[in-house]
Amino acid sequence: MPAGGRLYFRNMTANTSTTWEERFSAAARGMRFSAIRRMSALIEKPGIISFAPGQPSPETFPVAVFEEIVADVIAREGATAFQYILTRGLAPLLGAVREYAAAKGMPAAPAEALVTEGSQQGLDLLARVLIDPGDVVLVERPSYIGATSAFRAAQARMVGVRLGPEGLDLDHLRERHRAETAAGRRVKFLYVVPSFQNPSGISHSLASRRALVETARELDLLVIEDDPYGDLFFEAVPLPTLRSLEGGVVYLSSFSKILAPGLRTAFILGPEELLAKVEIAKQSANLCGSGLDQRILLGCLRSGLIGEQKARIRPYYRAKRDVMLAALAREMPAGVSWTRPEGGLFVWLSLPEGVDAESLLEAAVAEGVAYVIGAPFFVDGGGENTMRLTFAREDAPTIEEGVRRLGRVVRRTVGA
Amino acid sequence: MPAGGRLYFRNMTANTSTTWEERFSAAARGMRFSAIRRMSALIEKPGIISFAPGQPSPETFPVAVFEEIVADVIAREGATAFQYILTRGLAPLLGAVREYAAAKGMPAAPAEALVTEGSQQGLDLLARVLIDPGDVVLVERPSYIGATSAFRAAQARMVGVRLGPEGLDLDHLRERHRAETAAGRRVKFLYVVPSFQNPSGISHSLASRRALVETARELDLLVIEDDPYGDLFFEAVPLPTLRSLEGGVVYLSSFSKILAPGLRTAFILGPEELLAKVEIAKQSANLCGSGLDQRILLGCLRSGLIGEQKARIRPYYRAKRDVMLAALAREMPAGVSWTRPEGGLFVWLSLPEGVDAESLLEAAVAEGVAYVIGAPFFVDGGGENTMRLTFAREDAPTIEEGVRRLGRVVRRTVGA
Repeated sequence: MPAGGRLYFRNMTANTSTTWEERFSAAARGMRFSAIRRMSALIEKPGIISFAPGQPSPETFPVAVFEEIVADVIAREGATAFQYILTRGLAPLLGAVREYAAAKGMPAAPAEALVTEGSQQGLDLLARVLIDPGDVVLVERPSYIGATSAFRAAQARMVGVRLGPEGLDLDHLRERHRAETAAGRRVKFLYVVPSFQNPSGISHSLASRRALVETARELDLLVIEDDPYGDLFFEAVPLPTLRSLEGGVVYLSSFSKILAPGLRTAFILGPEELLAKVEIAKQSANLCGSGLDQRILLGCLRSGLIGEQKARIRPYYRAKRDVMLAALAREMPAGVSWTRPEGGLFVWLSLPEGVDAESLLEAAVAEGVAYVIGAPFFVDGGGENTMRLTFAREDAPTIEEGVRRLGRVVRRTVGA
Repeated sequence: MPAGGRLYFRNMTANTSTTWEERFSAAARGMRFSAIRRMSALIEKPGIISFAPGQPSPETFPVAVFEEIVADVIAREGATAFQYILTRGLAPLLGAVREYAAAKGMPAAPAEALVTEGSQQGLDLLARVLIDPGDVVLVERPSYIGATSAFRAAQARMVGVRLGPEGLDLDHLRERHRAETAAGRRVKFLYVVPSFQNPSGISHSLASRRALVETARELDLLVIEDDPYGDLFFEAVPLPTLRSLEGGVVYLSSFSKILAPGLRTAFILGPEELLAKVEIAKQSANLCGSGLDQRILLGCLRSGLIGEQKARIRPYYRAKRDVMLAALAREMPAGVSWTRPEGGLFVWLSLPEGVDAESLLEAAVAEGVAYVIGAPFFVDGGGENTMRLTFAREDAPTIEEGVRRLGRVVRRTVGA
């Protein structure tokens, strides 16, 4: 290879030719690494106590079962297990997923279910088939950053709706919807994570869920319900999903938090017309998912492991949540508040107004503790005084020590 | 769940509310299942001899090795093997891929390589970061339909350039480029599959490759080289890739044809500026790939299996190609021509002008043989008299019998 050849575009850029900025699409010109991603270099230090990652604990992954299933799949199916699979997902897996959903009060016809490579792919595909540049998407304040990044890649205009301790502020929803519609913009859908939301840990109450679907119906507003944490409930029986209250809701869920995120296998339930488009979009997005991952999940669903697994991980995470909440109560000064999640992986902490979680981060890291700042979860500004803490990663004594460190930094800053 | 609830959007559609067509994005409104996909119901009959699928043979997949690697990965890494991985790909896999590429004359810095979930994802992400609606993409006539579907999803205007037996018609390329530019449209890139192309089986000659990169340089035209079949050469030593001739070329390749497509693991080599955007787009597209699939591929690369595997599958496919070419020579009447591919999986057959391969398909299926019609591989019309035949799927006697059946149908139609 001629050494000069490698400099081709560099030379072009330096001289007369097209720059990369000119070559990029409008969507790409708007793409930036997220603030959280940019901060990861700061917080990924060896030895640091981290409340930052949005990841389940590997201690919960049923690895021995995965290994058994792989051996069994290869013994029974041989090489065909490594061929391309259908875009919509392995046929028997789709069947098993539909049974799984039906047991949660969400029966679905074959044309109403589709397997995706993680819920992130589901969100991205929905964005692509629903959003034209400038179309409005309503999201919670705060909202899940993976979803908002997918909507941003489709050049959506995102409009935040207040999220209270019991759920979405529906007056605010109506008001934002009215304002956007009056301005001549098309409101394409509302995106919500009603159970144990990432980042806030908030769950919508039953009354709030009912009122939400009723309001959406009145507004002729499509609802996309993302439910990765619904099975990680620590207290009472889980509340019904929005889709089980209202069949027109598009529902996404994943096995990442129950089994293991590395399997990259999730699903969408939704109207046939919509999923037909999603399937075409998926075919051009990646043809199909991993046949091995889908077969491992199928094995887990068929063996009944999922039920045992849920029963095992709920007390595991509940114990860690309890440790974190107790430590926060001991260590945090007056003026600091936090959510008390009844499930999921996250606690949301608010510093006194005017205290900036991003400025605090460097001191926290120096003290040996890390978190994720809250502001990037607000699509239209605010939340500078908030942070997300996960209790998933560290063990109990480490959570206590981490909150102690964080408490020192916060007290120093607020002068308590 | 109230039974009435499930009819929500159906009721809405029937009454006053938004239809799905109104809800969809412009991209989605343009999405259709491909002609090939629509025909799959016709040709997927039990007992049919199929020259249709664009798939490698499972007989070549090194399944026992995969099983060993999985056991080894779980023994060494345990649960962490099932955690989320980096968007850009598992770090040691990226290192192994860069070594692999360097050995093919394509050294790449860490920022110049990225792992994707199949080359299809690479094509889709490149389309998203490079194409605005109406931007021009130049493609071969015929061109790979997976790529053109990804470009179509980004609402590209696709313009075909003639492909001859030695490679691209560069005068035609200049002419099309000039016409598009003169019309005020932006030509974003040229997409080519220079080695053993799907669907035509054609390879660009060395002289043609050199002239192509030279012409692209003059036109300031970005080239995307897709190389899934380059290692499946049957005759002489393989020709250099475009990227090894010219470092500004963006290069995609995959292990789907060498190892197994189910692993869904491919890679892109390209300029740092471009891959930074691709990485952000990938993060919102699916967060990351399958950690298990990527670890299996890493095991194959580290063990040296890839070399052995290539040495084993070349004669396997060459023997099948020979059988198909010999059978075509025996069975086809005058006026029918076909390519003699020096590698890959496909033979491209042209019926006499005016004979329509789509009309012929029903008779062929009735005779018990299936193929893929050629017209959908032409982005701007033509090719109605062409078809793609793969020798990958069937064994030698079945290939002979299938070509015999196809010959009967063709002779009957052309009256020979």
